[in-house]
Amino acid sequence: MTWADYLDTHQSRFIEELCSFIRIPSVSAKPENANDVRVAGQWVIDRLTAAGIENAKMYETAGHPVVCADWLHAGPDVPTILIYGHFDVQPAEPFELWTSPPFEPTIRGDRIYGRGATDDKGAMLVPILAAEALLAETGRLPVNVRFFFEGQEEIGSPDLPPFIEKNLDRLQADMVFSADGSQWDTETPQIVLGLKGLTSLEIKVTGARSDLHSGMHGGGVANPGQALAHLLASMKAPDGRITIAGFYDDIVELTKEDRDAIARVPWDEAAYLAETGAPATHGEPGYSTRENLSARPTFEINGLSSGWQGEGTKTVLPSVASAKITCRLVANQNPERIFDLIAAHVDAHCPPSVTAEVSKNPGRADPFLMPAGHNATAIAGQVLEEVYGKEPYKTRVGGSIPVMSTLLDQLGLHGVMFAFGHADENQHAPDEFFRLPTFRLGQTAYARLMERLGGVSS
Amino acid sequence: MTWADYLDTHQSRFIEELCSFIRIPSVSAKPENANDVRVAGQWVIDRLTAAGIENAKMYETAGHPVVCADWLHAGPDVPTILIYGHFDVQPAEPFELWTSPPFEPTIRGDRIYGRGATDDKGAMLVPILAAEALLAETGRLPVNVRFFFEGQEEIGSPDLPPFIEKNLDRLQADMVFSADGSQWDTETPQIVLGLKGLTSLEIKVTGARSDLHSGMHGGGVANPGQALAHLLASMKAPDGRITIAGFYDDIVELTKEDRDAIARVPWDEAAYLAETGAPATHGEPGYSTRENLSARPTFEINGLSSGWQGEGTKTVLPSVASAKITCRLVANQNPERIFDLIAAHVDAHCPPSVTAEVSKNPGRADPFLMPAGHNATAIAGQVLEEVYGKEPYKTRVGGSIPVMSTLLDQLGLHGVMFAFGHADENQHAPDEFFRLPTFRLGQTAYARLMERLGGVSS
Repeated sequence: MTWADYLDTHQSRFIEELCSFIRIPSVSAKPENANDVRVAGQWVIDRLTAAGIENAKMYETAGHPVVCADWLHAGPDVPTILIYGHFDVQPAEPFELWTSPPFEPTIRGDRIYGRGATDDKGAMLVPILAAEALLAETGRLPVNVRFFFEGQEEIGSPDLPPFIEKNLDRLQADMVFSADGSQWDTETPQIVLGLKGLTSLEIKVTGARSDLHSGMHGGGVANPGQALAHLLASMKAPDGRITIAGFYDDIVELTKEDRDAIARVPWDEAAYLAETGAPATHGEPGYSTRENLSARPTFEINGLSSGWQGEGTKTVLPSVASAKITCRLVANQNPERIFDLIAAHVDAHCPPSVTAEVSKNPGRADPFLMPAGHNATAIAGQVLEEVYGKEPYKTRVGGSIPVMSTLLDQLGLHGVMFAFGHADENQHAPDEFFRLPTFRLGQTAYARLMERLGGVSS
Repeated sequence: MTWADYLDTHQSRFIEELCSFIRIPSVSAKPENANDVRVAGQWVIDRLTAAGIENAKMYETAGHPVVCADWLHAGPDVPTILIYGHFDVQPAEPFELWTSPPFEPTIRGDRIYGRGATDDKGAMLVPILAAEALLAETGRLPVNVRFFFEGQEEIGSPDLPPFIEKNLDRLQADMVFSADGSQWDTETPQIVLGLKGLTSLEIKVTGARSDLHSGMHGGGVANPGQALAHLLASMKAPDGRITIAGFYDDIVELTKEDRDAIARVPWDEAAYLAETGAPATHGEPGYSTRENLSARPTFEINGLSSGWQGEGTKTVLPSVASAKITCRLVANQNPERIFDLIAAHVDAHCPPSVTAEVSKNPGRADPFLMPAGHNATAIAGQVLEEVYGKEPYKTRVGGSIPVMSTLLDQLGLHGVMFAFGHADENQHAPDEFFRLPTFRLGQTAYARLMERLGGVSS
């Protein structure tokens, strides 16, 4: 039997295994799920071991753990590759918007629904299954492979940089491939040339010491929700331009060539609006929506909170109002400098009737831009072209994978996105799903990638 | 024994009874406490009956019930008075900010702490105890008395207007006194000449159909929290002026005499800031803080809600952001017209990239301004002067008692605030308390009020 036959034969078992994996509610953002993240890590260790990968072990960090494993018997003449993914997931709230419960995976048509189905449980399982098939049918892998899976990607991988720094020997490789990411669509692969960076923060505005009666104190003390609204309005204009002094200063402006490359990627605004349900697109003026999505920085309110949020009326003048914010950054914006600019803006614009505090939230990533002519990128592109029968689009994407910038810093390697999700699979939203045909296709792609890197023709 | 001796003798029992009353979590805003509101109503019925008041019964409305009772044997030559109060309370969240649990009343020093201690359980018990003492010691009351207690004041009494309209015979009186309200401070009584009106609403802004990944869609679709911030910022200027077109149009401007009367009431800005913990006062420019608090309208955000509010970072681009808002109104602003102006403002300022919906929340009240030379006001003022040994301040207050405007409409009577809370007793906030000395003082005041209205000299 060939590895391809093996994959076909075992596909229904693989789908059942993915279901078990999704059932573990490994939500890294919620302290009450910390043990579930660990359970998911142990699931990954067991799955790697069952596939024939060696040295699968859990490693502690200050937060959620890491899982590393390897198979290093391909010899010194072939490269060593590091494959990255994550076994934690986003919170699934609001539960009531899910068609089927987020942690009870359900197959409808050729899709599997559940939190983490695509981001990243389904996608990170793909290379493990490819390795299992190769080991089962050929007794070896064509290249040396290290696996590096983490449990805190969805909170911005705060404890990964020190872990990587202390475990460089365990991660040493010639190339890095990320099994977290996506292809352009089911017909067309993509090679990602850029990822946005990230800074995450919270603005907390405080008026009175405690919540007050809005009738007795309205007109006497400031409303922190109102002050927060003024602060947020002062940071981004209604037209979408970010109005924080210095915010755009360090950006490497898009060249004519960059903009042409982005314009070559197909874009259907009507389809985008139908997909998102938004009444109109909205982004920085002077750039196309595609440019804003992929190559311009953003300032997004992820959450607002103040006072009474239950049913009906509570005539309270709240003590506190807060906003959670993440900015996506592009080369060469620096997450710390952007945080400082925001803190300075809030400081300069906070009225005397309230106090405002700006604090960092977990999660930072440097923006990531692939060098021209990068070898692993070229090979990954060839494999994708073979498998899809179509040349990949060269794209930049709006997401951030913080660990990629740390691996670049520490190993000097630009990671290549080689992952088989799609952007429309409700990542971070209700009804997240993964396409089962691409689950299978990705397995082939990873097997061929390993073969090609090891010099095996297939 | 005189009624005063009776009150002294039974005070410790009264305090225990108040504790039992507070233990009932009659939170009218929370559907899960609906039965507790009913239990509190039954408690009031039993307590009225124990005091010797007759016909104490529960009456249904479309929402929480009403309790009415009477004692009508004083004869046709003395007036009939209606005494109003409410047995529902505000939600007690956030529980963790209470020194002792909100529904486990605790006496510290000469204060009783608990949700509803002052607003309005302690204060509404006062006239019942005065009546009990008079009935116990004299066998009768000097005036005919009706009691009218409701269970939905804290959600704006939405079902009271139809109830009052259908039960006018049960409420018919010559004068109305409210046992919900407060005195100026422990030394100084007040006669309230004005109450603010109220309109309550919610603004809901929707961008995309569901929550999206902020990295994949930031820069593509609008953030509803950002759009809400712009809307809120457009409705009230940073200087405190409300900038909704037409908002101030119908106001009866304060005369020089009105402003002089307000200025005569003592005001200590440093003490106010120390009490509230606010770093500075904040209100409509051109008016003193005292004027803003008592005689100018307000626009207050009672709650903000959007996206992720848990710990840490969730990189979500929320689908929805909403604000709960109440405006306090002054004569002659109309709650429906103000709602319409706000809805029109939102409609005119909502950007095309989101949709915005403005809906009414329960709670409306017309502003209330006492006519000069009102008889019940004059007599209440004399009793307060006797009991406190000090002439009452003539004030306007920022709170709203919606039922007062309905009683004015339906019975043609301006209710007189005759209540013994104080504005610093953490109404609607953690650590609400009631002063036990004023609990006792109020009982004397109500007994004397009834005597004076009945022509008994004491």
